[in-house]
Amino acid sequence: MTIGIVGAGQLGRMLALAGYPLGLDFLFLDPAIDAPAGKLAPLLNGSFDDARLLAELARRCGIVTFDWENVSVPALRQAKGAARICPPLAALAVAQDRASEKRLFERLGIPTTRWCPVGSHAQLTRAVRDIGLPGVLKTRRLGYDGKGQAVLETVADVELAWLKLGAVPLLYEERIPFTHEVSVIGARSTKGEVAIYPLNGNVHTDGILRVTRAPYGPSEWQKLADRYLSRVLAHFRYVGILAIEFFVHAGRLIANEMAPRVHNSGHWTIEGAQTSQFENHLRAIMGMPLGSTRALGHAGMVNLIGRMPPLPELLGLPGLHVHDYAKAPRPGRKVGHCTLVERSRGERDRRVRGLLSALATHTRIP
Amino acid sequence: MTIGIVGAGQLGRMLALAGYPLGLDFLFLDPAIDAPAGKLAPLLNGSFDDARLLAELARRCGIVTFDWENVSVPALRQAKGAARICPPLAALAVAQDRASEKRLFERLGIPTTRWCPVGSHAQLTRAVRDIGLPGVLKTRRLGYDGKGQAVLETVADVELAWLKLGAVPLLYEERIPFTHEVSVIGARSTKGEVAIYPLNGNVHTDGILRVTRAPYGPSEWQKLADRYLSRVLAHFRYVGILAIEFFVHAGRLIANEMAPRVHNSGHWTIEGAQTSQFENHLRAIMGMPLGSTRALGHAGMVNLIGRMPPLPELLGLPGLHVHDYAKAPRPGRKVGHCTLVERSRGERDRRVRGLLSALATHTRIP
Repeated sequence: MTIGIVGAGQLGRMLALAGYPLGLDFLFLDPAIDAPAGKLAPLLNGSFDDARLLAELARRCGIVTFDWENVSVPALRQAKGAARICPPLAALAVAQDRASEKRLFERLGIPTTRWCPVGSHAQLTRAVRDIGLPGVLKTRRLGYDGKGQAVLETVADVELAWLKLGAVPLLYEERIPFTHEVSVIGARSTKGEVAIYPLNGNVHTDGILRVTRAPYGPSEWQKLADRYLSRVLAHFRYVGILAIEFFVHAGRLIANEMAPRVHNSGHWTIEGAQTSQFENHLRAIMGMPLGSTRALGHAGMVNLIGRMPPLPELLGLPGLHVHDYAKAPRPGRKVGHCTLVERSRGERDRRVRGLLSALATHTRIP
Repeated sequence: MTIGIVGAGQLGRMLALAGYPLGLDFLFLDPAIDAPAGKLAPLLNGSFDDARLLAELARRCGIVTFDWENVSVPALRQAKGAARICPPLAALAVAQDRASEKRLFERLGIPTTRWCPVGSHAQLTRAVRDIGLPGVLKTRRLGYDGKGQAVLETVADVELAWLKLGAVPLLYEERIPFTHEVSVIGARSTKGEVAIYPLNGNVHTDGILRVTRAPYGPSEWQKLADRYLSRVLAHFRYVGILAIEFFVHAGRLIANEMAPRVHNSGHWTIEGAQTSQFENHLRAIMGMPLGSTRALGHAGMVNLIGRMPPLPELLGLPGLHVHDYAKAPRPGRKVGHCTLVERSRGERDRRVRGLLSALATHTRIP
């Protein structure tokens, strides 16, 4: 069976690496001829909303999925033909609009931040008055890795942020004084089977995920996260991997956003779980039995940002699993990640700290 | 860096799957246009001894390795140009000729079977008289998976085997009444670093490896195997993965044959060891630090022979890691394997038995 994937980034690349052992073939669509997954499988080279190429992808593949959520829902819907598109386009559409996402969380009883849509300067002034400062102004669409966001602490920030972002629909939300950021990742198959991974504890720097540790946090958090994720999965009769990110504040999990795809905070599952999120995404969309999400130890994942450190240095660190996405260096770009799986939480945390310091000292990642 | 691989079978495919996360690229040479590794990387399509294609491979790749040992040593030597070929061609040449292999084992003080070269019917008669019956008549070259072999139990067998095999150089060796078959796999890097995996216990059916369990056997066996493997690695100033298969008889390890490449009995290392044999082969030939060979549990690997069982059945078995080589079905052909990693030896053995019986009952592998 050939799986079509819209987007040939590192997520698509890791889907292919997980899928070849299952005997699957892949066909990608991506505007970048040198996209990370393009070395591993044939690539249709063109825009994400190229109707002709999307139709070709759908014609040549029984199932189409995506590794990037800013793809055009109408273009996908129109091109789909006889192919099955997973995850469902309804979930993709909601995830593309922060306001729809907030409304969905509210409707499903999932705590989220207080927020207001902002379509004009007057609405922004009112939102800041109602919700207060500090807060975060975000574009409703096309944000990722901290792009399209501004933290507002003072009235001067409000004006600057409006000048920077005000050309597109926005929302303003309270800034949660969180103690932890966590995410939950789970799969639902075409047969309705659900499998949820142990909770991830995440640290972001400059809006970009830097470190994930899993399993993470007390069992109460896991129970809440499982409950919230299950509601969203059931709501959409979802198929594939879904991730939800939460702030933890005063023992509550407050949903920040969701991603209808394999997720950076789940990369540790390649070596650290019985079945990786990539394999479970493929199992789910093919209607195969899901694999166990059991953690095999205490995993730590560190993103490599900007450019890859020298390979001999990384491979010289005992037990480190290296993932190079074969991307050209660029400041702030995720170019790879590495994962450790240790026998205890303490040892894992100690080694993650050592790794971060080795990366900072020896390789000067920008 | 691009690694050239002569042979695009399942071993090459698994080398590429291990190498992409390290940021490597691959170029294969294989006579089969639909070879298993050809879906994952570009393929030069032609004979293994095509001088022009071998030269192109060497020109486009800094390092050339092979996933199949019946490639022409003179053709490789002639084509090599500026490329480095690993493992060394001297080791490949010895492994291609069972008589050279036996002489090497003898020279390095590694116990092997009693044997005689057989180039004529008279020599066969003398060999059978000296070594006795039962014994095994083997072609000196081009044997694999039990091909080119005949077990001789009676004088009638001798004549039949001569008719069948006598056209090419042979050797006759005693048949060891072994209690176990084991293999040892290790890597030596360009820097002289050596890393050896826990011992594999193997079961063959009709000359084809059926099951490997690892770690296997008492520590004395491991010590002997490590010592013998280290001697061969040192002798060749070897670079890459080397495997040696042994019969165990009366507490002794008796070398049967060696393979200068990643080895079927090491497939369990993908999920069952800290670093897979495929990754360590690549690390070794690039001169990178080797990864730990520590076992993560008790692994059992079962080869899938003839045709793949239905994927949903395999994925329905808890914790089973499936590897489909994307090969057309054919009786006696290795088309895939699957691996379990359990917490105890007893649980592993129980699950391997269950798996063999499930495969026999539900999928009727030819």
